[in-house]
Amino acid sequence: MDLLVSPIAELHTMNSELGEGPLGTLHEAALGFDQGELVYLGPANEAPVARTTVDAQGCVALPGLVDCHTHSIFAGSRADEFQRRLAGESYSAILEAGGGILSTVRATRDASDDALIQLLRSRLLGFLSRGVTTVEVKSGYGLSVEHELRICRVLARQDWPVHVEKTFLGAHAIPAEFREDREAYVQAVIEDMIPALGDTADALDVYCDRGAFTLQESRQILAAGMELGLKGRIHAEQVEWTGAAAMAAELGCCSADHLERLDSAGIQAMANSEIVAVLLPGAQLYLKDSSPPARDLADAGVPLAVATDFNPGSSPVRDLLTCATLACITMGLTVEEALLGITKNAALALGLPKRGWLGEGASADVALFELPPGEQGAAALIQYMGSHQARAVIRNGQLAWSA
Amino acid sequence: MDLLVSPIAELHTMNSELGEGPLGTLHEAALGFDQGELVYLGPANEAPVARTTVDAQGCVALPGLVDCHTHSIFAGSRADEFQRRLAGESYSAILEAGGGILSTVRATRDASDDALIQLLRSRLLGFLSRGVTTVEVKSGYGLSVEHELRICRVLARQDWPVHVEKTFLGAHAIPAEFREDREAYVQAVIEDMIPALGDTADALDVYCDRGAFTLQESRQILAAGMELGLKGRIHAEQVEWTGAAAMAAELGCCSADHLERLDSAGIQAMANSEIVAVLLPGAQLYLKDSSPPARDLADAGVPLAVATDFNPGSSPVRDLLTCATLACITMGLTVEEALLGITKNAALALGLPKRGWLGEGASADVALFELPPGEQGAAALIQYMGSHQARAVIRNGQLAWSA
Repeated sequence: MDLLVSPIAELHTMNSELGEGPLGTLHEAALGFDQGELVYLGPANEAPVARTTVDAQGCVALPGLVDCHTHSIFAGSRADEFQRRLAGESYSAILEAGGGILSTVRATRDASDDALIQLLRSRLLGFLSRGVTTVEVKSGYGLSVEHELRICRVLARQDWPVHVEKTFLGAHAIPAEFREDREAYVQAVIEDMIPALGDTADALDVYCDRGAFTLQESRQILAAGMELGLKGRIHAEQVEWTGAAAMAAELGCCSADHLERLDSAGIQAMANSEIVAVLLPGAQLYLKDSSPPARDLADAGVPLAVATDFNPGSSPVRDLLTCATLACITMGLTVEEALLGITKNAALALGLPKRGWLGEGASADVALFELPPGEQGAAALIQYMGSHQARAVIRNGQLAWSA
Repeated sequence: MDLLVSPIAELHTMNSELGEGPLGTLHEAALGFDQGELVYLGPANEAPVARTTVDAQGCVALPGLVDCHTHSIFAGSRADEFQRRLAGESYSAILEAGGGILSTVRATRDASDDALIQLLRSRLLGFLSRGVTTVEVKSGYGLSVEHELRICRVLARQDWPVHVEKTFLGAHAIPAEFREDREAYVQAVIEDMIPALGDTADALDVYCDRGAFTLQESRQILAAGMELGLKGRIHAEQVEWTGAAAMAAELGCCSADHLERLDSAGIQAMANSEIVAVLLPGAQLYLKDSSPPARDLADAGVPLAVATDFNPGSSPVRDLLTCATLACITMGLTVEEALLGITKNAALALGLPKRGWLGEGASADVALFELPPGEQGAAALIQYMGSHQARAVIRNGQLAWSA
């Protein structure tokens, strides 16, 4: 056997067939890997020997974490804008002066492929060091045929340090050049971008909201992409209620994300489908926004996922566990819901059912965390906000990162 | 020269005599240390050679950060309580069942000196790795003559990995044994604890609030300690307005902390003294509390500090930079105020005027941070919430930690 992780104080498999409770929990357990596969999951004292052992004494192990909503591929900085907003300048004044998302679009268009690759790789290594082995990354800072397709080509490189789920988000905003003719941009997305994506995208997403794309435009764009086999997702009901979540549920999208202004009809429509609700507490915090109806969604049986929404404007938060904590404090999730939300349910939100849990048929990705001094279980990972660097991360059965 | 840190992309000395603007900023700078002293602070290209060089390319350097309000010495876990509260159980029901602060008191009393030392040392190493070189630590989980004095003796060990400012907080809560005779506990604090502290405490603090100590009790306790030369601080106006901040300003305390319900008379009283307002956004977040009047305090000229309030109940947050970010987002501080609040002003809150800045006469403590990919200045350390492990930390002119 190549690699043994042992003895793990608390292992949550997210697989109720393998352990106790809804998180499939084992204590004093071990995980063994050989030739990239998980070959042992059981008691530490019965584990076979291995060429390499990672000491997991006192640690909690989770399936490799899944961040199912990020805008990680961009260039430029919005730190100056953050300062100006804190000093009292309004977002609309900044936008009119060419700031906001449009400044990120400019910087991203101006960046070379190599620069984008280096920025994304650094960010993904940051995710990996915090236990995340699957990261969804959206395009959307190109906003032209040339630049959206280029960003997707960059994303489609196969050698990232984590598994990257590639989402085309050409419909992120109406670019400045199309302000007077939005229909032409929607047509460009549908006719010139989506058909040219080929295998450079796994999914497509639309920002359906006031100031972005209408419900009708969003439906057209999603339908065009899903017809070609792309999985669908949507930014729904963030700024204003539009009915986007119900529409996405009806179309068979994998996830509807944000949902701050979701209504009860939308909850019901989601509950009647397989769609996952993706909660983004970082954006809620930075935008001082209201909470999505997380408890009502859970009570209706909609699976909840939690993601960082990592982006340089509304959610400059790179730590998925911090977002899990915020989801508990500000949205009322339980610790179990938060842990499922950054593992199994986040993978479901991506349409990747082999990720986010451990056992036969699942990916061999594991995140091992040291606990805060004096603490003993995964609840403390959520209770203590952030500051949890992984002790070790296994990806595809190999040691991918260690502290 | 022993040690050179160079070339630092952005160095904030918090000393306007040495650099530009209110943070005393230099670019492409270097810091040199010899025999535990800062001996060079200037342009990188003019720095003398040293036996050891820390590569600071692309990094931001700040004075060693100062966390001026923590409850870091305790045993036991409150992770279970966190889960029960999220699942809907009320704090009062938990308290009645022996939970809350009283469970931490039990666990702390039961822990051996060695156990407490090991827990505190681990926590302080965690602070150090996040750039903090000065940590205020309060007693207050002993709540008996024997245990409060023991905790202060443990704190007074001199070999911690950071500078520990020792605060006696015997008046943290009325212990269960004295529920029926609170006057007897106040007398024990004043007559049996304070006079016996000797040099095991630098300061004393009182929790003046509904359910804790009254304004009159707090005044008696503070006066008794300050008369013996201890610096004074106070937990003020958190749950309910009591007039504690104005009273503390009048007594000459170094800081008044929390202040969620501070009134305009309290602001004025603080402005007329040298007292520092300590903001605790972690507790605000976890308790879903309202904001203190931070902008009004700043406008009145009261120095603002920001601290973690690290404790296992209301603020299990170990990352001071996360709290600086929260202070901006939820309390309206500017980036400059947040950076001063975790350095120079936090040191003033502790009555330690040589800490939290760099230059002649200041302590030789420095925190060096790598920036998020693509970012270039300290504003990004605040904009991006958390996840900033220090690349290196210098304490007393020596390399104390490196990534």
